[in-house]
Amino acid sequence: MTRAQLTEKILDIKREKGWSWKHICAEIGGVSPVLIVGALLGQMKLVKPLAAKAAALFDLSAAEQAMLNEVPYRGSPMPPSDPLIYRFYELVMVNGPAWKALIEEEFGDGIMSAIDFDMEIERLPNPKGDRVKFTMSGKFLPYKYYGSEQGLPEYGFREE
Amino acid sequence: MTRAQLTEKILDIKREKGWSWKHICAEIGGVSPVLIVGALLGQMKLVKPLAAKAAALFDLSAAEQAMLNEVPYRGSPMPPSDPLIYRFYELVMVNGPAWKALIEEEFGDGIMSAIDFDMEIERLPNPKGDRVKFTMSGKFLPYKYYGSEQGLPEYGFREE
Amino acid sequence: MTRAQLTEKILDIKREKGWSWKHICAEIGGVSPVLIVGALLGQMKLVKPLAAKAAALFDLSAAEQAMLNEVPYRGSPMPPSDPLIYRFYELVMVNGPAWKALIEEEFGDGIMSAIDFDMEIERLPNPKGDRVKFTMSGKFLPYKYYGSEQGLPEYGFREE
Amino acid sequence: MTRAQLTEKILDIKREKGWSWKHICAEIGGVSPVLIVGALLGQMKLVKPLAAKAAALFDLSAAEQAMLNEVPYRGSPMPPSDPLIYRFYELVMVNGPAWKALIEEEFGDGIMSAIDFDMEIERLPNPKGDRVKFTMSGKFLPYKYYGSEQGLPEYGFREE
Amino acid sequence: MTRAQLTEKILDIKREKGWSWKHICAEIGGVSPVLIVGALLGQMKLVKPLAAKAAALFDLSAAEQAMLNEVPYRGSPMPPSDPLIYRFYELVMVNGPAWKALIEEEFGDGIMSAIDFDMEIERLPNPKGDRVKFTMSGKFLPYKYYGSEQGLPEYGFREE
Amino acid sequence: MTRAQLTEKILDIKREKGWSWKHICAEIGGVSPVLIVGALLGQMKLVKPLAAKAAALFDLSAAEQAMLNEVPYRGSPMPPSDPLIYRFYELVMVNGPAWKALIEEEFGDGIMSAIDFDMEIERLPNPKGDRVKFTMSGKFLPYKYYGSEQGLPEYGFREE
Amino acid sequence: MTRAQLTEKILDIKREKGWSWKHICAEIGGVSPVLIVGALLGQMKLVKPLAAKAAALFDLSAAEQAMLNEVPYRGSPMPPSDPLIYRFYELVMVNGPAWKALIEEEFGDGIMSAIDFDMEIERLPNPKGDRVKFTMSGKFLPYKYYGSEQGLPEYGFREE
Amino acid sequence: MTRAQLTEKILDIKREKGWSWKHICAEIGGVSPVLIVGALLGQMKLVKPLAAKAAALFDLSAAEQAMLNEVPYRGSPMPPSDPLIYRFYELVMVNGPAWKALIEEEFGDGIMSAIDFDMEIERLPNPKGDRVKFTMSGKFLPYKYYGSEQGLPEYGFREE
Amino acid sequence: MTRAQLTEKILDIKREKGWSWKHICAEIGGVSPVLIVGALLGQMKLVKPLAAKAAALFDLSAAEQAMLNEVPYRGSPMPPSDPLIYRFYELVMVNGPAWKALIEEEFGDGIMSAIDFDMEIERLPNPKGDRVKFTMSGKFLPYKYYGSEQGLPEYGFREE
Amino acid sequence: MTRAQLTEKILDIKREKGWSWKHICAEIGGVSPVLIVGALLGQMKLVKPLAAKAAALFDLSAAEQAMLNEVPYRGSPMPPSDPLIYRFYELVMVNGPAWKALIEEEFGDGIMSAIDFDMEIERLPNPKGDRVKFTMSGKFLPYKYYGSEQGLPEYGFREE
Repeated sequence: MTRAQLTEKILDIKREKGWSWKHICAEIGGVSPVLIVGALLGQMKLVKPLAAKAAALFDLSAAEQAMLNEVPYRGSPMPPSDPLIYRFYELVMVNGPAWKALIEEEFGDGIMSAIDFDMEIERLPNPKGDRVKFTMSGKFLPYKYYGSEQGLPEYGFREE
Repeated sequence: MTRAQLTEKILDIKREKGWSWKHICAEIGGVSPVLIVGALLGQMKLVKPLAAKAAALFDLSAAEQAMLNEVPYRGSPMPPSDPLIYRFYELVMVNGPAWKALIEEEFGDGIMSAIDFDMEIERLPNPKGDRVKFTMSGKFLPYKYYGSEQGLPEYGFREE
Repeated sequence: MTRAQLTEKILDIKREKGWSWKHICAEIGGVSPVLIVGALLGQMKLVKPLAAKAAALFDLSAAEQAMLNEVPYRGSPMPPSDPLIYRFYELVMVNGPAWKALIEEEFGDGIMSAIDFDMEIERLPNPKGDRVKFTMSGKFLPYKYYGSEQGLPEYGFREE
Repeated sequence: MTRAQLTEKILDIKREKGWSWKHICAEIGGVSPVLIVGALLGQMKLVKPLAAKAAALFDLSAAEQAMLNEVPYRGSPMPPSDPLIYRFYELVMVNGPAWKALIEEEFGDGIMSAIDFDMEIERLPNPKGDRVKFTMSGKFLPYKYYGSEQGLPEYGFREE
Repeated sequence: MTRAQLTEKILDIKREKGWSWKHICAEIGGVSPVLIVGALLGQMKLVKPLAAKAAALFDLSAAEQAMLNEVPYRGSPMPPSDPLIYRFYELVMVNGPAWKALIEEEFGDGIMSAIDFDMEIERLPNPKGDRVKFTMSGKFLPYKYYGSEQGLPEYGFREE
Repeated sequence: MTRAQLTEKILDIKREKGWSWKHICAEIGGVSPVLIVGALLGQMKLVKPLAAKAAALFDLSAAEQAMLNEVPYRGSPMPPSDPLIYRFYELVMVNGPAWKALIEEEFGDGIMSAIDFDMEIERLPNPKGDRVKFTMSGKFLPYKYYGSEQGLPEYGFREE
Repeated sequence: MTRAQLTEKILDIKREKGWSWKHICAEIGGVSPVLIVGALLGQMKLVKPLAAKAAALFDLSAAEQAMLNEVPYRGSPMPPSDPLIYRFYELVMVNGPAWKALIEEEFGDGIMSAIDFDMEIERLPNPKGDRVKFTMSGKFLPYKYYGSEQGLPEYGFREE
Repeated sequence: MTRAQLTEKILDIKREKGWSWKHICAEIGGVSPVLIVGALLGQMKLVKPLAAKAAALFDLSAAEQAMLNEVPYRGSPMPPSDPLIYRFYELVMVNGPAWKALIEEEFGDGIMSAIDFDMEIERLPNPKGDRVKFTMSGKFLPYKYYGSEQGLPEYGFREE
Repeated sequence: MTRAQLTEKILDIKREKGWSWKHICAEIGGVSPVLIVGALLGQMKLVKPLAAKAAALFDLSAAEQAMLNEVPYRGSPMPPSDPLIYRFYELVMVNGPAWKALIEEEFGDGIMSAIDFDMEIERLPNPKGDRVKFTMSGKFLPYKYYGSEQGLPEYGFREE
Repeated sequence: MTRAQLTEKILDIKREKGWSWKHICAEIGGVSPVLIVGALLGQMKLVKPLAAKAAALFDLSAAEQAMLNEVPYRGSPMPPSDPLIYRFYELVMVNGPAWKALIEEEFGDGIMSAIDFDMEIERLPNPKGDRVKFTMSGKFLPYKYYGSEQGLPEYGFREE
């Protein structure tokens, strides 16, 4: 059994039952819908109690339940050919240089973590057409300026 | 003159003057720092009054000022080799499938615009380490279900 | 079941029945043949009443009907190796720079939407050889020049 | 001198003079703006009388004028990273399979020419936002079913 | 059923029967062996009478016969890893620039059609080792210099 | 000096002098125009007497003349974005499998040489539009079935 | 000035002076040679006091010194064609799956940081041939299992 | 049977039994867990006694046991889309140039072997968050400066 | 049946029987082990008598025997991810330019044939570690300097 | 100064002087022509006494001489578009799987080193056309089966 086969099975059941993701996430609960849907699509791990709930909901075998609790080999095809996902890719491609410049000036040398990260998707009502609102935050991780053969004290990542 | 040459010149001046992006954005003003820095890095257009302010600040020629007012050929190299930009790319690669599922369930068939889009970057103080906060919103654009040879009324993008 | 398997099944039935796309589109109706054929080939969603008609025509199961109503992961392989599709790819590759220059001069900074978009294909009789006529229109979407730290009014996308 | 250097020079002059493409095309005239702008951007050839007009307008040398009359090595980078051009690329990627099915059913085995091709770009006023209208037509070219060792008559491309 | 599965079936039968392509082409006849073999390998369409002969020869079902009459999604993997096919690829890679220069000087701006095209392969006896002879011809298609906003007459593709 | 710089210089002179390739090939002579133009574009070597003639014609330095006599690093970008060259690439992509099948059946296991190869380009007058005619022949090279640990005689490439 | 130009200048000076990296790192000091050499090769930032020392050593201008203090656009070409660097790439390609399995079993769902990371390279004398010893450590970063619409408590990354 | 199928079977059994890698490695023993897990994931060979133990543990057939003793076709997809493996890839991409410079200065012209190589992964407790520690060593292999037409003695790889 | 399926079957039998390649090659004989193993792995053709021996040894069907006698679509994935094969790829990547310079100086303009080619692999005992010895030779094929519009005599490939 | 610029300078001098590689290698001597030519083309390091001879021959500056003594960033573009180099690439692509099978059976799990490697190129006179003969040998490096948590003795790479 591969993770892709499990995803296909789950989507088959979802389609036959006529369930929405909202319904599924409410049943499993506990963490963000982004993580639950991500796990059911094969990109995230479900912790044990949630994997158990998912297994109960989809009537999965013990092995399938265990697989949902495993860390998958993450990642989907890039560049994304699907227009919805491509627009996010484009935002990174066009704005990436400016984000880099602004974050480094504000925080110093480092990155915004994609691991210690959270996000929320909301609908923003708007008379000209509703908007999709993303609120995300990731921990800033400074590059470590490590070690020295001369035994000098380490430099911190911010310079005063 | 190419846009890349203009960007290199602007960065040379910024370095010599010791200016921060914060200072530059305060001088030019009018729109988000993401757009101003994006324009100076060759990814965005500056509208005429802002291009004039940028030209005054960097002591640019009339042709250089005009170039800042042109729409550039947008886009930076992908996949990004720089770790800071890569983390955003990874977020799209790992979460793209879940975002697609959730947005389509909430909004119907369509995309979140990367053009009618706005964003803000903030520092989120946190005792475990400050966080980078992104707040972004894009207009939802429904796929148009157009035309019919039989002259039937068009379907809206949402089905009731 | 994957969308590709459903497409293969539909094409098998079409072949066995000896149906033309014209016949199929007349049976399903409601929207442009480009959308109906696109959906049956796995690139578009059929709204519920049309998915029901398609299911009746092809004698599909409820799950298959539901799948036709789902938004697929869009996109076909690029660059296209098929000569017919390649010619369109080539038109973009050769004319893209001129289209960009002319559209931006006429409309300002932005894009022609590929989502709020419609098109029609016609046969243009011609003594030297009939022609394929494409008439397409997409909504122009201006880049939003958003936000400012100084609270200044937003600039419109067109400059007067 | 390369064609890219000539394009850069022409764009420098356009910027310094503050000319619009509309103005330039009116000065050179004779063929569609898509072709004139395409030639000045290095993707098309200008026939001799138009190359002469372009040379007069931009004060080009005889060698530069001759270069405008040469067929360039056509093609721009793909996939296009610029959002405006990408949307056309996406239209081909998403709709290509349906276009292929519909054109082949209507015309038989062959292609729509990208060479014996014409197009027009127009602004379509619309209260919900103006639209970009493309009207294009290309000659249909049937695949030739040639030769036979047995000396049988050739089949035409359409079967009756 | 996919076209690749049909090709695999046909090759299985050919192998079991011990048939040569020469035998198969003589049985089906009507067009060049390049087209017949191409169709059986999934790159070309067989017109109805020939598809019927092929179906009789290989004892195909009605659906399989219909599939041979469909235009396939053409194209094989590139760059070709097989040495025989690679040599042709190399000829294009090494000689392409010279072919372009010579054809454009002789015919003007345009292309040699790969659609209105015919070819013949022959064995050329030679005491130093026999040679493979290709004789091919394709219709020259001139770039159309179309339309003008000023209503001027169109330029022909050749300049006198 | 690189070969690309020499090519650019030669094309500059050709443009300034208003020479055609026909004129240049007549002046240099000795081998096919495909080879002469190929050499001047940086894909072929000119033997010494021809390099001398080319040097006299273009008024080249001794080092430039010597460079024309060197074997260049052959090859142009693939896939070709230029439509004229692409059509040949497409012919290989679509017909490659059939060529392989037919040549191997006729000649056995091996390749048509792209090195011991000659070709001629002609204009084929045709009332429906002139055609480009290619006549090419390459030596067939059989795969060598070499060596054996058991000292058995080698098998020839053809099996009787 | 680009970072690549600065690197070229620094390497020119190093070559002319006949300096070793050991000498350069001893002069600049303060952090690991991996970071100092990385910065001089354009992959790392030097904090201000070290950039000052580097500027004094190489007699750099104030702008060049400032550039060493900037965060570069990190990343070198992949896959690496140089054999020494390729061997590390190969270690990741061959061992990556096992590392993933072992780290996730020991630490849970997350990654080893490449940012909060340190390393040391040593020579390991060995009678069969000296060995290169790498000692590296990176902070383990657990995936954050965030947010929930139902207000449930967050799950920690480790499950008890 | 392919190696990928064997890996899938082994993972299915591991999941059903609820075994950890630690348990599996303790049962098979003899070499590093990196090698045992690597072999079970299809990247390494297990020597016969260990393959026998693995076969006993997983109740494999004789053919499956033999396959574990075969050298697989090594390598996993690059660039790695999984974040955990990507971080190692990024370390090579960012630090590769510095590693090359420092190793070559210390050892001379050559490489660190990825074959005569060993490594150990440990957990490094740390109050700010535990760390993953890698200790690896590879034999340095000097480039051989071989042969000479003049019969001179070979140069060693280090120059004194 | 595909060639890959036949290879998988042959490897399954080899594994079950516990045969070595040495044993298989001794049974089939007639040509080099490189060719026999190559054919069984799907890269070479076995001439009829050898295909018959292979079929007898592996108890293959008549169709499978016929497939071994067919010329396969040659080529394996590049760049090779397997370390053993990669080292050969690297030799070409690093030494290719020197080989080209030396062969062209010695032989003139042309190539070493990869078709009229033979090789032998031997074990070279060496106290510091045995060596793998490759002895290969390929026929030199000179570029043909063909044809001329002026009817001049052809130039040979070597210049005297 | 980059290594590519130094190579260009050396080739310019070689061309102006009319030197052959044979002459250059005789002047520099000491190691194989493959290494000397490789170094002058930017792929190998020349040890100090040879770099000195090369510098004297080409009248290089001290910095240029020092650069020849540096280890370059090795590797040339792949896949090679030049036919001469491509043929070697093809040999690896077609024969790689057989070489892997035969070497691993004879030597065990490991690789043939591309570093501890030597080779010789010779002309093999042959009445049917001279042959290029390559004799190469590389040290076999066995995969190290290292470490064990249970303190068991290491397995050797060969199994008895």
